[in-house]
Amino acid sequence: MALIVQKYGGSSVADADAIKRVAQRIVAQKKAGYDVVVVVSAMGDTTDELLDLAEKVSPVPPKREMDMLLTAGERMSMALVAMAIGNLGYEARSFTGSQAGVITTSLHGNAKIIDVTPGRIQEALDEGSICIVAGFQGVSQDSKDITTLGRGGSDTTAVALAAALNADACEIYSDVDGVFTADPRIVPSARRIPQVSYEEMLEMAASGTKILHLRCVEYARRYNIPLHVRSSFSQKPGTWVVSEVEETEGMEQPIISGVSHDRSEAKITVVGVPDKVGEAATIFTALADAEINIDMIVQNVSAASTARTDISFTVPMDFGQTAMTALKKVQEKVGFEGLRYDDQIGKVSLVGAGMRSYPGVTSRFFDAIARSGTNIEMISTSEIRISVIVEQDQIDTAVAAAHSEFELDADQVEAVVYGGTGR
Amino acid sequence: MALIVQKYGGSSVADADAIKRVAQRIVAQKKAGYDVVVVVSAMGDTTDELLDLAEKVSPVPPKREMDMLLTAGERMSMALVAMAIGNLGYEARSFTGSQAGVITTSLHGNAKIIDVTPGRIQEALDEGSICIVAGFQGVSQDSKDITTLGRGGSDTTAVALAAALNADACEIYSDVDGVFTADPRIVPSARRIPQVSYEEMLEMAASGTKILHLRCVEYARRYNIPLHVRSSFSQKPGTWVVSEVEETEGMEQPIISGVSHDRSEAKITVVGVPDKVGEAATIFTALADAEINIDMIVQNVSAASTARTDISFTVPMDFGQTAMTALKKVQEKVGFEGLRYDDQIGKVSLVGAGMRSYPGVTSRFFDAIARSGTNIEMISTSEIRISVIVEQDQIDTAVAAAHSEFELDADQVEAVVYGGTGR
Repeated sequence: MALIVQKYGGSSVADADAIKRVAQRIVAQKKAGYDVVVVVSAMGDTTDELLDLAEKVSPVPPKREMDMLLTAGERMSMALVAMAIGNLGYEARSFTGSQAGVITTSLHGNAKIIDVTPGRIQEALDEGSICIVAGFQGVSQDSKDITTLGRGGSDTTAVALAAALNADACEIYSDVDGVFTADPRIVPSARRIPQVSYEEMLEMAASGTKILHLRCVEYARRYNIPLHVRSSFSQKPGTWVVSEVEETEGMEQPIISGVSHDRSEAKITVVGVPDKVGEAATIFTALADAEINIDMIVQNVSAASTARTDISFTVPMDFGQTAMTALKKVQEKVGFEGLRYDDQIGKVSLVGAGMRSYPGVTSRFFDAIARSGTNIEMISTSEIRISVIVEQDQIDTAVAAAHSEFELDADQVEAVVYGGTGR
Repeated sequence: MALIVQKYGGSSVADADAIKRVAQRIVAQKKAGYDVVVVVSAMGDTTDELLDLAEKVSPVPPKREMDMLLTAGERMSMALVAMAIGNLGYEARSFTGSQAGVITTSLHGNAKIIDVTPGRIQEALDEGSICIVAGFQGVSQDSKDITTLGRGGSDTTAVALAAALNADACEIYSDVDGVFTADPRIVPSARRIPQVSYEEMLEMAASGTKILHLRCVEYARRYNIPLHVRSSFSQKPGTWVVSEVEETEGMEQPIISGVSHDRSEAKITVVGVPDKVGEAATIFTALADAEINIDMIVQNVSAASTARTDISFTVPMDFGQTAMTALKKVQEKVGFEGLRYDDQIGKVSLVGAGMRSYPGVTSRFFDAIARSGTNIEMISTSEIRISVIVEQDQIDTAVAAAHSEFELDADQVEAVVYGGTGR
């Protein structure tokens, strides 16, 4: 029998009515002849309420206990979803991460899944039951303590379970209709993308598209689990994330899948670094030791007269001050002149598997950005992505310009489809 | 090192401030040189809120899922208590019932503890940690499903853990100062009982004293764990429940420990039962099959002329209608004439180990009740208890009369103590 894993986010199980709606959707899938495993997040605001409580009793709560506390959230939502399904005449059993066999590292608050041993889930499925599993949580292999997986953890739970159970697909439900060619709040003419490859989705997630978390997509790619990202508030199809995008009849695959943006980074410039072997290594080792992930790096050509250069890079804004502190500690050793910190920046990225075979994409992108009056501060590229750093208040303009340039707007696409002319 | 198990009820951990107070009390015990294991209930209204949610998604929620849902309550309170202790500079680790090794039967909602294997708790204690354990919950031996223990479950968890860890004492904290000679709301002159035997406490719990649950006291007696019932809102000593009450200097042990009452029962009378062998057995088998616990039973002497008799008994009011339905089903078979149901009754009980050696107690009790103008409808006795059924609106009068007759009022006792005359 075909097996579907479904994942419902916090807004899909926010209250009793939402839970009843979700139960109907799950039962519909079961009635259609599928085995169903459901992964749920905590209800709406539960996690925030628990964090508030924790803060009241301790300013810096121990992470082991924080995980114990937060995992109560999924425990409630999963039991309620199971009850609501029972009320529709179908049998459902809920399982904690530990019961579902989600084995993790012991890094509380940000544990990684090591293995999934879903013996109890498989048994319950074989007995005809629908299984409801707590997302975001597992049990540490070493200490047997309860862990949480960090951001995007429930999606990752769903994909990991789908892989371990050899599921046919994994549906990720939230309150958005799928992945769009750009954020519709910035580009009202942005379209839902029907299909996108794992590679493209990874690049989009890494460059600011919040729909799916990087780890979840990596997991899906590794085990080749088709993901269906869709809304629990409608019956519309969403976005399929798959290994190879099918070519739709009469249409080639588009060159560009979408434009993403990210407002969460800051730029640090190390000014006047002596142009000697090993100086850059000392700087980035200091940042690595402080566990800071660097995104883009640019080193200016040094002027021969001064034998000094500037190195700029971006970091998540949340780690900005930690990075500055780490750098100040090595200032004397490296002998650089100073530091500049700028969090009024943003990143705009163009993602598309098609750009591999269209060499002109980069210049078209830069040209469109320039025509929109936006100044490019930094550039980085991968095989299927081009990213630029611009001033924060120019992000929207740059996104719209790129979106339009690559004919991603809804009316442009309709013209293409109905006109029958390829791009 | 001496080991103390403490149990805090829902009102003691009702909010962040209450949790911080409890943490200070726990740390004080640790500072005094004890190893400490703490059992906590869910915070204040959490359980009611979860029950409300369950009712909204399903009128008759599956019991397995109800247990999964309700156990989220203790998970929250225990993590918060551990955090608050951490904030005072001491290490605390929280454990679910399952992690603490509380193995139970699989009767969801009312599981019984089969075994306690507290290996992880012992290990954490050996490492100097304070252990916080979720009360009221365990894991079923057969299905490995999460179970709850039913009413008084957290107290039972505490006593069972105390037994398994060979603790020196078990402190039961709530919002009352201990066990009193009568309910102080009815008898303002009622006194705290400093010490009471397991046997007496069992009889008091069975006859309506709500402080400790029967199962918890039975467990304590079986493993000889001294219980200290006290308030978490004061530093006053409470009531010790022990195997043998010490005789305080200059005072003999009192004949009567206290007067308890119970408003939760109903009386059913089966009218005109044919006076033949086996008729009573048929009636009580029907009730047993409906899983109804009978408390007191009275059978009238049958009048030789009619060869018929009346049988009266009491049942918990909640089971009253189930009992009536079960009886109506056997009316034709037994051939009784009718049924009478009366829930406007109550039970008043006199409990005291001393009554074994004072034969006059029964008549003094009946006489005091009679002098208060109260009519006795039914009587039952054990070796250390006498109970009577009276009309519900005469309960208070009867309790006060008995309390005064056996010199339990505070001023009477003071007179005895200071006057030096024994009773």
